[in-house]
Amino acid sequence: KATYHVCTLPGDGIGPEIMAEGKKVLAAVGEKANVDFVCEDHLIGGAAIDACGSPLPDETLNAAKASDAVLLASVGGPKWDSTDPNAPRPEQGLLGIRKGLGLYTNLRPVKIYDALAGASTLRPEVIKGVDLVIVRELTGGLYFGRRERFYDEEGAGANGGRGQRAYDTMEYREYEVERIARKAFEAARKRRNKVTSVDKRNVLETSRMWREVVHRVHDEEFPEVELEDLLVDNTAMQLINRPADFDVIVTENMFGDILSDEAAQITGSLGMLASASLGDGVSLFEPSAGSAPDIAGKGIANPLAQILSAGMMLTYAFDMTEEAGWVESAVERVLDDGWRTRDIADDATPTDHVLGTAAMGDKVVEYL
Amino acid sequence: KATYHVCTLPGDGIGPEIMAEGKKVLAAVGEKANVDFVCEDHLIGGAAIDACGSPLPDETLNAAKASDAVLLASVGGPKWDSTDPNAPRPEQGLLGIRKGLGLYTNLRPVKIYDALAGASTLRPEVIKGVDLVIVRELTGGLYFGRRERFYDEEGAGANGGRGQRAYDTMEYREYEVERIARKAFEAARKRRNKVTSVDKRNVLETSRMWREVVHRVHDEEFPEVELEDLLVDNTAMQLINRPADFDVIVTENMFGDILSDEAAQITGSLGMLASASLGDGVSLFEPSAGSAPDIAGKGIANPLAQILSAGMMLTYAFDMTEEAGWVESAVERVLDDGWRTRDIADDATPTDHVLGTAAMGDKVVEYL
Ligand SMILES: CC(C)[C@H](C(=O)O)[C@@H](O)C(=O)O
Ligand SMILES: CC(C)[C@H](C(=O)O)[C@@H](O)C(=O)O
Repeated sequence: KATYHVCTLPGDGIGPEIMAEGKKVLAAVGEKANVDFVCEDHLIGGAAIDACGSPLPDETLNAAKASDAVLLASVGGPKWDSTDPNAPRPEQGLLGIRKGLGLYTNLRPVKIYDALAGASTLRPEVIKGVDLVIVRELTGGLYFGRRERFYDEEGAGANGGRGQRAYDTMEYREYEVERIARKAFEAARKRRNKVTSVDKRNVLETSRMWREVVHRVHDEEFPEVELEDLLVDNTAMQLINRPADFDVIVTENMFGDILSDEAAQITGSLGMLASASLGDGVSLFEPSAGSAPDIAGKGIANPLAQILSAGMMLTYAFDMTEEAGWVESAVERVLDDGWRTRDIADDATPTDHVLGTAAMGDKVVEYL
Repeated sequence: KATYHVCTLPGDGIGPEIMAEGKKVLAAVGEKANVDFVCEDHLIGGAAIDACGSPLPDETLNAAKASDAVLLASVGGPKWDSTDPNAPRPEQGLLGIRKGLGLYTNLRPVKIYDALAGASTLRPEVIKGVDLVIVRELTGGLYFGRRERFYDEEGAGANGGRGQRAYDTMEYREYEVERIARKAFEAARKRRNKVTSVDKRNVLETSRMWREVVHRVHDEEFPEVELEDLLVDNTAMQLINRPADFDVIVTENMFGDILSDEAAQITGSLGMLASASLGDGVSLFEPSAGSAPDIAGKGIANPLAQILSAGMMLTYAFDMTEEAGWVESAVERVLDDGWRTRDIADDATPTDHVLGTAAMGDKVVEYL
């Protein structure tokens, strides 16, 4: 009987609640597939700051490295918002584990569930058939470049004594662009064979290099995949204008942060979106939405993104594509039968079909 | 009789066609208000590259500096797309004139015209009442920071000989944030008194400085204006989720580029959106949309954004608020009476109400 060790990181806010449902579904899949998923909780984010002063204790990073896959829920909350620039911040845990595990590829599938099309603020005919994936570079660019703040005499003198100066560096090396481009083309091959590469090459040098390298990788290794370039500002428009036209969108870290959240919002059901962060070793899986501190502890959070993240883990970490299909199909059928958590319920949902977090987890297990 | 000298920059693509209508309306306003607008065309963008090898000839920048205001149409087109990194690019003309005139404030009003609500891909109830303005910092950040590309031995060795490396720098000085914050608060005072300041302070040092400085300016000088902070990724979502909630959005250059195009697309009628770029001297006014090379020369482009840009010029450059009101109201009544250019027409528009570029300019003059 195969055994997989999963490093589970419940984190903050609704994290622990939705993680419990992710584990529940994982256990059910394990039973059915005769596989043992051994989950071990570790600290990250605000919870880790509270317990030991650091958003990513060494112990957690080591456990993650030693595991077969990492399942994360969410980090952050107003409790750890501080005006002290040196105070540890929960997000550093997230950034630290991405860097620590070398997770340079972030896959964010954005898909419309027919049953939830009404939740979108876009017209139904516009979002119909939306099925895209954002491939975001995750360990480079502005996120990990050199940054500094200092006091600049010259600037201060000329401008009334307020002489602070700060910078961040958007930096890329050729191999970083190469490897993310490959991931995008590989993803496209398994989908509708089309990649949109997003940059701002009319302004940025990193973007000019990005575009050249993406085209070289395309021409040398994936000539049969359709490739188009789109400027980031135009992409922000086209995601609203014709979202169904996109298949795979590949872009650098900061643009990917903005565009993947924009694309997620187009569905209107953020609580449904999972993501995978991959490198050359252990991978990490997490919902796209945040820690929702306002509803934490109430038992009403939507656990489906966490459950679908566990599903992505089956595919990407354990090559259990068939079993991942069970999870996806169970979620789809639960929705088709009208079961909802509060965030995705509407006026037409009968009150006895609005489920709490745990009940929704149970429902998915039941449909498995 | 007052005389104003306007430096007109038709540029590329549909630029010359829509500029002609901007001038037409300006002349009509001048006649009615007993003011002389003396327009003088100068070269910029691709047209300037073709004529003299530079996207912003000194002659043009000098003429702009000597004028009372600059009215720009649009620059760029595939003709000047080159793989040669040293070839001049039309957009450099735009970036050059922004920097040359010190235009650090870009105002992009985004407003739904009731008559055109159907053009949006968002549901009517979501876009109803949208009336926001993006205040984008325009001469700092990644756009004007140090950038470079070089060959890095070390990176090359470790990664199979592909050792290019590139970086761009996002840099801000305190006074740059101060002055754009002031513009935003001043704009809010004349509107609904609310500013949303957008940053990515959980990652960027420039954003942490941005947030501190915006709050200091607020507390010291504009305590009565409502101020909220929003992360850039969250803003990309909320613009789709609840666009009508925003009043003034202030942000740095690159975020502003992305978010203002996203916000523009929400209306579904890009051809209607004007913008103003202001500094401490001469100001510049231009439509938000691009040069649309695909329809250039066909006489079908929508001139209304150009006309409304001339309207913004009346307000911001010449303090002719009343006359600006004439222009806005003429445009609104033209739309209310069902007159359309092709881009904003729909199935319900009778064919005899679909106007060409010049006819639409004439129509606005008629309604003045
Ligand atoms: C929390 C934050 C640092 C993070 C990011 O910007 O990458 C988040 O927005 C995300 O997209 O996962
Ligand atoms: C053409 C380009 C350089 C420019 C920018 O990025 O500022 C344009 O997108 C704009 O928003 O005016």
